[in-house]
Amino acid sequence: MSDTEELKSALAALTERVGSLEDVNDIRKLHYAYGYYIDYNRPDAVAELFADDAEIVFLSGIYRGKEGARRLYGTWFQNFFTEGKPGPVYGFLLDHFQMQDIITVSPDRKTAKGRFRAILMGGNHESREYKPEGLPDQFYEAGIYENEYVREDGVWKIKRLDYVVQWQADYEKGWFNTVAHLQPAVQAYPENPLGPDELIGEPRQTWPHRQELAMHFAHPVLGKAIHS
Amino acid sequence: MSDTEELKSALAALTERVGSLEDVNDIRKLHYAYGYYIDYNRPDAVAELFADDAEIVFLSGIYRGKEGARRLYGTWFQNFFTEGKPGPVYGFLLDHFQMQDIITVSPDRKTAKGRFRAILMGGNHESREYKPEGLPDQFYEAGIYENEYVREDGVWKIKRLDYVVQWQADYEKGWFNTVAHLQPAVQAYPENPLGPDELIGEPRQTWPHRQELAMHFAHPVLGKAIHS
Amino acid sequence: MSDTEELKSALAALTERVGSLEDVNDIRKLHYAYGYYIDYNRPDAVAELFADDAEIVFLSGIYRGKEGARRLYGTWFQNFFTEGKPGPVYGFLLDHFQMQDIITVSPDRKTAKGRFRAILMGGNHESREYKPEGLPDQFYEAGIYENEYVREDGVWKIKRLDYVVQWQADYEKGWFNTVAHLQPAVQAYPENPLGPDELIGEPRQTWPHRQELAMHFAHPVLGKAIHS
Repeated sequence: MSDTEELKSALAALTERVGSLEDVNDIRKLHYAYGYYIDYNRPDAVAELFADDAEIVFLSGIYRGKEGARRLYGTWFQNFFTEGKPGPVYGFLLDHFQMQDIITVSPDRKTAKGRFRAILMGGNHESREYKPEGLPDQFYEAGIYENEYVREDGVWKIKRLDYVVQWQADYEKGWFNTVAHLQPAVQAYPENPLGPDELIGEPRQTWPHRQELAMHFAHPVLGKAIHS
Repeated sequence: MSDTEELKSALAALTERVGSLEDVNDIRKLHYAYGYYIDYNRPDAVAELFADDAEIVFLSGIYRGKEGARRLYGTWFQNFFTEGKPGPVYGFLLDHFQMQDIITVSPDRKTAKGRFRAILMGGNHESREYKPEGLPDQFYEAGIYENEYVREDGVWKIKRLDYVVQWQADYEKGWFNTVAHLQPAVQAYPENPLGPDELIGEPRQTWPHRQELAMHFAHPVLGKAIHS
Repeated sequence: MSDTEELKSALAALTERVGSLEDVNDIRKLHYAYGYYIDYNRPDAVAELFADDAEIVFLSGIYRGKEGARRLYGTWFQNFFTEGKPGPVYGFLLDHFQMQDIITVSPDRKTAKGRFRAILMGGNHESREYKPEGLPDQFYEAGIYENEYVREDGVWKIKRLDYVVQWQADYEKGWFNTVAHLQPAVQAYPENPLGPDELIGEPRQTWPHRQELAMHFAHPVLGKAIHS
């Protein structure tokens, strides 16, 4: 191989490594933007983060595509939490603090996986007139995400978002005395107009039950996935 | 174009991409260092993170330049919280947990913007002799940052820090029953020796009022900013 | 220097910069994986993140090597928290939320340092039958890490993990009324079968006492370390 060919080849390989680093940053940004959008109840912005054939797994149900995303984040969440208004609104909290990303880009850079976690602090101020029915006045929630991503026309999108609630706690009682107010879905859409398109086979019971969400990533040293 | 010219051009383009990735890391580090410094009440270290003509927006006031930064983080915070001593000090907490960064570097790599958020856990232990007057014994605060950065002589500095408190909660009462102990500034410096150099036009009322801080970043898929 | 030599040299320099960015990502992943593993009580996965001659500093004691790691995370934590079972288990929480990384890779890319912090939310649900003796029913903990890393055969491993508890708070009482339930080690292994291999010279007293953990990183603007 000539010097020039060698240089071209080395440059091409390095360009792929740089592309992969950019992918990681893009996917972090995608997830963190998702976090900021859901805090403020922006269902349209959220829905546009997903690929057309995306799946969202939430409370043992699967919501499909952008329509499913709009049903979950709009018809359900936004209507329920803020009466259809984009947030932030007076006296209401829905803060999802997103963190601890582990992102793995496939060698061909067409797909990727990401693990994240969030703490949610939610609820009302006593002076807020509208109080969503059945929502605790003030509560914590913690959850883990194991997501899949796809790169379409050079743009990373969420292909599959899997969020598993780890625990919930009413503020006054803490996790010692709380049974999760969120329970697995039991009825799909359209019977339940807010329901998922499909129920998963085995419902995931919520706190004080625990649900592992298997870690997609290889052990950083052993180089292989740790399975439960 | 010759092979060599093509290679030089491709290498120059890739070098810029790498530089931009380094910029993102530098700015994350800048903000996270800011977080560690304010936890421990190090006003001089904080002030030196800012450009000479920087602005800090806090509680509806603008503090200008390094002098403004020293007034805010030193004359006010350090004197008030730890009687002028650098922390950590016995029985006092001022933990700002920083996370969820979205950083956007301009194409010319001279300026950048960053969104971050923080949870603050603050207060005293009952056994601490000095208790800052008017500070709740133990409290939460959450806030969002939308910052601007400038690269001067190859070093990233904070050009504008805009921090908007999202809510506060006394530990015993939670966010359901708390009215924020921090209220918008009403008097500027030097009338108020701890005050900002200038009041912003429209005061931002604090919890249970909510204040959006517009997201600087383009929608990751649609490629355009989502405005409120 | 010929054009080709210049290109080779520039490409080699850029390759090192890219390698250093990859190192930062690898080390973040290493620490965040550590976080996910300890949440779920996986002592073997944790132990394999360490170099053979690693040190873990915890509660004023030093645990040495993989054997020390297994004693700390297995013989002690896993046995105590989940009776030797890998988590998650019914009604038990040990969530370490990891964040705010500042990672500094040495110019030769053989060693690195990293600062991180964590919030821990831990405890039981009232309905869990087994309750670890002496563990508060529900509690917070916050801590800071200053870690050292080593690259062996191209793989980053933890060389030294130094975790300093900043405060602890029983859920019902908060940090105003809690004295840390974790106290400095007073007896080494094997006298204490769960103890460290060695006690550090000066015990670090826990909350409401405070312990600084010196920041390893240079001031992002001044370019020099801020010492306490």
